[in-house]
Amino acid sequence: MRMYDVIAKKRDGGTLSDEEIQFFIDGYVHGEIPDYQASALMMAIFLRGMTAKETASLTRSMAYSGDLVDLSSIDGIKVDKHSTGGVGDKTTLIVAPIVASLGVRVAKMSGRGLGHTGGTVDKLESIPGFRTSLDRETFFEIVRRVGVSVIGQSGNLAPADKKLYALRDVTATVNSIPLIASSIMSKKIAAGSDRILLDVKTGSGAFMKTLEDSIALAKEMVSIGEHVGRRTVALITDMDRPLGCAIGNALEVREACETLRGNGPEDLTEVCVELAANMLWLAEKGELAQCRDLAKQQIENGRAFAKLKEMVQAQGGVVRMLEDPAQFTQPKVCYEVPAPRDGFLYTMNTELCGIASVELGAGRERKEDPIDFSAGIVLRKKIGDFVQKGQILASFYSSEEKKCRIAEQTFLQALCIQDKMPKPVPLIHARVSANGVETSE
Amino acid sequence: MRMYDVIAKKRDGGTLSDEEIQFFIDGYVHGEIPDYQASALMMAIFLRGMTAKETASLTRSMAYSGDLVDLSSIDGIKVDKHSTGGVGDKTTLIVAPIVASLGVRVAKMSGRGLGHTGGTVDKLESIPGFRTSLDRETFFEIVRRVGVSVIGQSGNLAPADKKLYALRDVTATVNSIPLIASSIMSKKIAAGSDRILLDVKTGSGAFMKTLEDSIALAKEMVSIGEHVGRRTVALITDMDRPLGCAIGNALEVREACETLRGNGPEDLTEVCVELAANMLWLAEKGELAQCRDLAKQQIENGRAFAKLKEMVQAQGGVVRMLEDPAQFTQPKVCYEVPAPRDGFLYTMNTELCGIASVELGAGRERKEDPIDFSAGIVLRKKIGDFVQKGQILASFYSSEEKKCRIAEQTFLQALCIQDKMPKPVPLIHARVSANGVETSE
Repeated sequence: MRMYDVIAKKRDGGTLSDEEIQFFIDGYVHGEIPDYQASALMMAIFLRGMTAKETASLTRSMAYSGDLVDLSSIDGIKVDKHSTGGVGDKTTLIVAPIVASLGVRVAKMSGRGLGHTGGTVDKLESIPGFRTSLDRETFFEIVRRVGVSVIGQSGNLAPADKKLYALRDVTATVNSIPLIASSIMSKKIAAGSDRILLDVKTGSGAFMKTLEDSIALAKEMVSIGEHVGRRTVALITDMDRPLGCAIGNALEVREACETLRGNGPEDLTEVCVELAANMLWLAEKGELAQCRDLAKQQIENGRAFAKLKEMVQAQGGVVRMLEDPAQFTQPKVCYEVPAPRDGFLYTMNTELCGIASVELGAGRERKEDPIDFSAGIVLRKKIGDFVQKGQILASFYSSEEKKCRIAEQTFLQALCIQDKMPKPVPLIHARVSANGVETSE
Repeated sequence: MRMYDVIAKKRDGGTLSDEEIQFFIDGYVHGEIPDYQASALMMAIFLRGMTAKETASLTRSMAYSGDLVDLSSIDGIKVDKHSTGGVGDKTTLIVAPIVASLGVRVAKMSGRGLGHTGGTVDKLESIPGFRTSLDRETFFEIVRRVGVSVIGQSGNLAPADKKLYALRDVTATVNSIPLIASSIMSKKIAAGSDRILLDVKTGSGAFMKTLEDSIALAKEMVSIGEHVGRRTVALITDMDRPLGCAIGNALEVREACETLRGNGPEDLTEVCVELAANMLWLAEKGELAQCRDLAKQQIENGRAFAKLKEMVQAQGGVVRMLEDPAQFTQPKVCYEVPAPRDGFLYTMNTELCGIASVELGAGRERKEDPIDFSAGIVLRKKIGDFVQKGQILASFYSSEEKKCRIAEQTFLQALCIQDKMPKPVPLIHARVSANGVETSE
């Protein structure tokens, strides 16, 4: 087999066989196939597409290119959750304890934030003492005992994806739905869970800006899951506004705790109940409506919050911080952003809101940048709210007032205040499963 | 400017500006843009195409990436000729002397043969003493004094094309009409002639197998020529059969001499007259019909043959070889191939005929392979001829009988003998100029 022929076949719109895809991934990971051939193939795939079978095959080859996490020593159905990344997305901190408190095992590897989106690992590390890097046995032991553990990605998971993603990033071949889908799913498959819930964000703060693209990506990933025997469901959730009110690591942990206590923002609570219900459904805990009730009940009876504390305890974090948020390190500067005019908060460019939080110190532009855990934004007004000129729109937290002033410019640019009320938009746009797409509209 | 954005623009079907193309070519030649980005762009161009303006711009950037041959010290209109490569194509040896004998200056750099196609430089080197590598001043001096000189490519002509072609060759991005056209034309433009005649071969022995593709390539090249101010004409000539009867270096020089003496094969003579007429037309020697008469007249009156001898003399070759072909080194083995059945010679896969000649030793599969100048094929029957079983189809010349037996298998595979006569096919399929396409059909 020659790489040249594999490229030419895809260039001409052909369908690559499992063997051809395996040959490419093997050769590329082992350095036998050079970057310049891989990038030509990536561009050909970008422009010619891949069938569902090809995409599944690529995913499988990438998943199997490195370590495979074997969760078989943990009893019961293990359900993973993945978000395509958003602004203010602290759902894992809420959803994982809810489902774990009902006996669903969650052995989750999470990522760090980059650019305008945050990462669960950073949020957890804002809890003093919390360890996100555990050896495999400790990780498994916590999942067995507590039911849930969330750590950073460890080991050599899907190295083919890692190498290929870095190449796609510099050759303008990232934004291809089959390539994005196989990249995400290869890591999920290598991570070993039996069932996968995907939270595909859509809107101005999401990787996928349109509902159409988000649904296409979700369908592709669900199809991969079915092809490789991992039942997968995707919810398309709104990211045309930040989720909840808090953006920034410690701020989000506090909001997650509030939500688990039943006092969270409505939008965040609704999305978390829906995500939890779908994870429970995947774990065969009942019909979706029943699962929704179960999820709500675990918030009300306090068991979900207790489960989060158990996990934090098991991973070395200071649990009392969760009970009394005043214990978190306080930011040096608190800065309030007033409304520039009267009107309804009509739209928020959510990517710009995320960038404003990075400017405050809550995120990183490059992988090696440090994070200020206490920095971030708390929104005092949400889309649809009426504001008067001078009323506080948001509180900014940072180490320097200069950063606040820079972030304020970005934040105000993100907002659109109008005289009319915006049309309400659903929080959950669609649910994609092996049975097809159900939309809310 | 970032290469990433240039790739993304073309990927999305955009039109690259002159500045973007120049940025790419400069960066690539200087090693600032890596191969993996260049190959992604090549695949995007392959699949998205380029406008005539983009193609001209790429050609210009590549032409200007190295040395430019300055022919301004030679008086008169300099006309170049380029063939896309064929089997038995010895037209340069005939056409260049014809037009030079009428005062048109030909300062030509030719290539070597590779794969199933031959190269003019190899053919000339079969003349003992003939030097194809001359310093620039000697080359110019011979063009000034004799009117014509043919040498191998020298200097650092269009290094961007050289580097890019090598990359395209291993990334399945060769067969793109704008990329082929710009590759050929960049070298022609760097070579400095004022006018360019292109001989675009079409059929089973050509790079372009279909008339449609050949015309598309010709149109693209003529368009480039017009864009950069070099008047260009292309003839689409038949390569669904070998041109003339001889295939192999010394054999082809002998056939060229016969043709210049008026005793050449009909097909070869007709094609050469047409090519010469178009070069004369480009040099403003009159209407095309007049130019045809002029070309024929120079064969009849012996002046064209005299001009070839003058050139061979000037470049150190042994002129008496041209007068008395028996002086050429004789091949060790002469092997005759009989017809396997009665019938009309219906088709000849011309690429296979070329491969058979390489198997005899007349060509090279890899750049570094040596050539046996005396080896090759003389066809005794041409398409349309009736043959009886056992009648000689061709004579093979080689250093070993074993090679002849291998080549015979290939050659017989190339032939199709049928009971009916083939439909006659024109030798010149079309003429493409700035005024459009004139076809013979």
